[in-house]
Amino acid sequence: MPESQISSLAADSPPRVVIEHVSPEIDDGRFPIKRVVGENVVVEADIFADGHDAISAALLYRHRGEDTWLETPMIPEVNDRWRASFSVLEVGGYEYTLQAWIDPFASWRSRFFKKVEAGQDVSVDILVGANLVEEAATRAANVGPDQLQQFASLMRQENGHTPSEAVSIAKDENLARLMAKYPDRTLAATYAKTLRVEVDREKAGFSSWYEMFPRSCSTEPGRHGTFQDCINRLPYVAEMGFDVLYLPPIHPIGRKNRKGMNNNPGSSVMDVGSPWAIGAEEGGHKSIHPQLGTLEDFQRLIGEAREYELELAMDIAFQCTPDHPYVRQHPEWFRWRPDGTVQYAENPPKKYEDIYPLNFENPNWRELWEELKEVMVFWADLGVRIFRVDNPHTKPFEFWEWSIREIKKQYPDVIFLAEAFTRPKVMYRLAKLGFTQSYTYFAWRNSKWELEQYFTELTKSEVREYFRPNLWPNTPDILTDYLQSGGRSAFMIRLILAATLGANYGIYGPAFELCENRPLRAGSEEYLNSEKYEIRNWGLERAGSLKGLITRVNQIRHSNSALETNARLRFHSTDNPQLIAYSKTTEDLSNSMLIVVNLDPHYTQSGWLDLPLDYFELDPHHAYQVHDLLTDIRYLWHGTRNYVELNPHTMPAHILRLKRPVRNEPDVVDFM
Amino acid sequence: MPESQISSLAADSPPRVVIEHVSPEIDDGRFPIKRVVGENVVVEADIFADGHDAISAALLYRHRGEDTWLETPMIPEVNDRWRASFSVLEVGGYEYTLQAWIDPFASWRSRFFKKVEAGQDVSVDILVGANLVEEAATRAANVGPDQLQQFASLMRQENGHTPSEAVSIAKDENLARLMAKYPDRTLAATYAKTLRVEVDREKAGFSSWYEMFPRSCSTEPGRHGTFQDCINRLPYVAEMGFDVLYLPPIHPIGRKNRKGMNNNPGSSVMDVGSPWAIGAEEGGHKSIHPQLGTLEDFQRLIGEAREYELELAMDIAFQCTPDHPYVRQHPEWFRWRPDGTVQYAENPPKKYEDIYPLNFENPNWRELWEELKEVMVFWADLGVRIFRVDNPHTKPFEFWEWSIREIKKQYPDVIFLAEAFTRPKVMYRLAKLGFTQSYTYFAWRNSKWELEQYFTELTKSEVREYFRPNLWPNTPDILTDYLQSGGRSAFMIRLILAATLGANYGIYGPAFELCENRPLRAGSEEYLNSEKYEIRNWGLERAGSLKGLITRVNQIRHSNSALETNARLRFHSTDNPQLIAYSKTTEDLSNSMLIVVNLDPHYTQSGWLDLPLDYFELDPHHAYQVHDLLTDIRYLWHGTRNYVELNPHTMPAHILRLKRPVRNEPDVVDFM
Repeated sequence: MPESQISSLAADSPPRVVIEHVSPEIDDGRFPIKRVVGENVVVEADIFADGHDAISAALLYRHRGEDTWLETPMIPEVNDRWRASFSVLEVGGYEYTLQAWIDPFASWRSRFFKKVEAGQDVSVDILVGANLVEEAATRAANVGPDQLQQFASLMRQENGHTPSEAVSIAKDENLARLMAKYPDRTLAATYAKTLRVEVDREKAGFSSWYEMFPRSCSTEPGRHGTFQDCINRLPYVAEMGFDVLYLPPIHPIGRKNRKGMNNNPGSSVMDVGSPWAIGAEEGGHKSIHPQLGTLEDFQRLIGEAREYELELAMDIAFQCTPDHPYVRQHPEWFRWRPDGTVQYAENPPKKYEDIYPLNFENPNWRELWEELKEVMVFWADLGVRIFRVDNPHTKPFEFWEWSIREIKKQYPDVIFLAEAFTRPKVMYRLAKLGFTQSYTYFAWRNSKWELEQYFTELTKSEVREYFRPNLWPNTPDILTDYLQSGGRSAFMIRLILAATLGANYGIYGPAFELCENRPLRAGSEEYLNSEKYEIRNWGLERAGSLKGLITRVNQIRHSNSALETNARLRFHSTDNPQLIAYSKTTEDLSNSMLIVVNLDPHYTQSGWLDLPLDYFELDPHHAYQVHDLLTDIRYLWHGTRNYVELNPHTMPAHILRLKRPVRNEPDVVDFM
Repeated sequence: MPESQISSLAADSPPRVVIEHVSPEIDDGRFPIKRVVGENVVVEADIFADGHDAISAALLYRHRGEDTWLETPMIPEVNDRWRASFSVLEVGGYEYTLQAWIDPFASWRSRFFKKVEAGQDVSVDILVGANLVEEAATRAANVGPDQLQQFASLMRQENGHTPSEAVSIAKDENLARLMAKYPDRTLAATYAKTLRVEVDREKAGFSSWYEMFPRSCSTEPGRHGTFQDCINRLPYVAEMGFDVLYLPPIHPIGRKNRKGMNNNPGSSVMDVGSPWAIGAEEGGHKSIHPQLGTLEDFQRLIGEAREYELELAMDIAFQCTPDHPYVRQHPEWFRWRPDGTVQYAENPPKKYEDIYPLNFENPNWRELWEELKEVMVFWADLGVRIFRVDNPHTKPFEFWEWSIREIKKQYPDVIFLAEAFTRPKVMYRLAKLGFTQSYTYFAWRNSKWELEQYFTELTKSEVREYFRPNLWPNTPDILTDYLQSGGRSAFMIRLILAATLGANYGIYGPAFELCENRPLRAGSEEYLNSEKYEIRNWGLERAGSLKGLITRVNQIRHSNSALETNARLRFHSTDNPQLIAYSKTTEDLSNSMLIVVNLDPHYTQSGWLDLPLDYFELDPHHAYQVHDLLTDIRYLWHGTRNYVELNPHTMPAHILRLKRPVRNEPDVVDFM
């Protein structure tokens, strides 16, 4: 054989390495995973080839739009599973894929060592190795030093070098490192798919929402609130530690078939109507309800809120009243009945004659979709960067995927919260196709096993890669039975659960902090005298307000970074089904938070809590401190089992920071 | 609005229905699932849309090559999961995919019922329905009756029909059925992938293999066996009930570096060499070892075997001795060392100087691959339809995928058994890319938990869709410690496990039935005086032969169709870790088999067995019969817990047929 053919690979022969079962990968790569700026993407894959050759593999990644890939080596773990990770540093899209190749030098080196160890003659083997090094030298010629050429020459025992020198060169770690730097990737396998990461700003992953009705912000009973009243309310909201202020729709409200108080079908001229009944002669989705103020007032509110580190979230509700200008301008956007009327919303036998749904499949659907997208762009142009979308599950998936993508091209920092309380697969689909955050079933998960099961699904299954839960104990539509019957303690319990189980959470106030719990009627989740249909004048400083607790809880959230993500949520066992316990930790355990909640709003509950000390890297032979950040009381705990007792009428929960002893001198023990 | 626009869909608007998480689907549809003729393919998918409209869905399937799809409606189960199935009736490829669409008539009908029930005015609604019926009538015009037009006319109360007639027509089941027959699929979503089924003949799923060395078939000690001796041996093999006769390679054996007895490196002229050392001056992979006979003799063996319902399986071992004609004809197919010699096989410090591996990546790889495929075609042309492939995991995956696909185009009934004892992901990959059956880790799974865990993975995970296990208690390379130390009982135990846990199983005989258990040395799994390196003269009628038991077990396999598949394997609990219990049933439970095995080859073991009576549809209030087909003893069992005792020295297992009482008269109880 001519020497030129030695080790040469046929450039067109198919790659021998297989890359499969890559994770994370959502629906074959159809959808991106989600991250916020600064987070890691840990990528795993099964990588293997026929035979027994050594394999090398790399994780390739780049910010969308970059031409060149960055790469980091993948490390084999057990059973042909490999792993590597990269950080996402900028808002926008990232891409990643994998490459793997047979590594003849590593294969050769491992065989070579075994032969040397067995005392076999390696004189021919060393020449095989020298050929591999020489090939690498050729590949490196334009980029690297000619050190490889020198190594090859030494291994060939040119210029009087001895066989034992050649052997020690062959075993040289520097040579191995250089060879790994210039591999032959002619026959490398590249993973067939380019996977995507959607990177959002930090608030997408960690946010505290406060919802309020602007029209109820007036301090004079009977007067319709204005944006100026909202500005006056900002210090109240900001003091509690919220960072998103979400307003129900602020558009003109329809007059035809307007609903009265408590959703009464007959309305008087005094009735203010539902803000979700959008559209009147004053305008539609791009207009401001005149009683709230002007566009300029609204922009002023946005600016003032920013001063308080509060970001405004707008409500997007794509539905129209019979008075909406769209009905006249674009009758083809609606469904018509044979009697010449427009099809109103219905859920038989219930009728919603004040609401006309849009027909997304109408022959002029492109115009409709474009207009709705323009509605969102209109508000984004004015400075709104957070949209809470009403009932997105009753509009086509494709519409959201397209419109969110388009808007993010222009405003990559925009955040969309999906208000879809529907079947799980539909909720997950909306998250996959672009919604940044999602409402959840949290409001109805009250028992320990329900909470554990649901939050395990949300944080341990594939769902966690794309679905960011936003936990709301109440909304204007949801006053749960638990809140109705549990009194003030129930509100405390649900607040602490929402704020610590979820990195994103929100409350609808002032109903929440004032523990408003009167339902429209028994068995209903609607509020009595709901703000959806009338102006409420809340006495904010009412005794019993949870303002102080909420302030404390939000402070704790902001000063303990373990609570900024759900990634490391872990449940711990207690011997009392009314006591739920869970922890969140930073990756390096520098912040370890343990939360214990009494789920019973009526009675004191006590029990023994089991902690996996090794998980927290706590020494089983030494005491450790747990510092309750709610009460500022410190406890000295020992071992895995410790006693907990919680009275719901004083404080139904512990939010504990675990502190490891830093010194173990007999007299002085500090905890950090 | 002009009436023509009522209900009309925009033909180009994107489909609203989502079809995802289809199962079975292997690696995003990259690989087919496997079935044998007559089996079912149960297809499931998540199917849903935005909003609350009714959805219809169909499973589409066809034999590969057909232009038109057959279809069957999918049925919704819980949580947006839908299901349907089809049967595969012919060998070859099948394809399947899914289609789903919004069903406006079903949506309308459900709303209509609710309104009628609530006593609401439906006069406009009925006209909406009539329009939908009329649209369907237009679609049906060329294919169906004009009955739909009549329905529409009735609903419109034309020709003097009354409103109450119209309402009852709207509720008519016949109308609903007709409407379901002519849906508007303009905006149907079609699943993006066409998934594949590889359908093999029945033997691919249910087979009993017997391996023997032809050269050991001579009845005269010292004489090299011939194909004629194999023909004489056929009645012996057939009587035991096997249906595949597998022969190690039958090609000329190399002389250079030929191995002696017990793999001794120095060989004498008397040594016969290993049949896997393929190639000599007499020829290579398309030639017959002269001492066995001629091509014609081999064809005669194939024909005679067929008379005994035995199908011949050939060994495919793509490796060459230094004497193989390929080495001279195609030196570029091998790897050369700098000293001008060919690189032999090695696993340092072990060297296999008698074997040259082929270099599948050589510059002339296409010629090599073509030639190797032609080797298989050569034997297929001669009538061989089963190939047992030696070490496929040391050849590129792409080679197998391509060559198996090519050969199956010509011979769709060919069966490939992969002899890859390697890492699990590599074994699974080979199965995915085309191997019909696969060797497994069964030989080394001896304890109850190991067997339960392994066979749960093989039969309950996705693996079952493409990996058909073939269970071998021994091979010429594998004499396990369990067999070495457990005596005759160990062979009985492993035979019964293999034949009942696996629809496909095999033994290497006569070593197996004669309970040959002497290892080369302690700690080795090699046989002493292995047939791999010498001719053995077995006294077939030796006392203690398991021939009778094997015959009985194979009879049981052939008369109980529950044992023909692994699909419904289920383990049952016993209170003794040495007693393993499992069942296999036909889908309709007409054949329910319960196997209990004492895994301890030394001592009698007893315990209580728990049976899920509802699973077997057994009445907890009546006795049922279990009929031991090994001993022909019948037991009357009651309830869920029953006592079992097994002496390994008489019979270490029960193979029980469950029989339900067919009459419950006080005096006469029959069991079927």
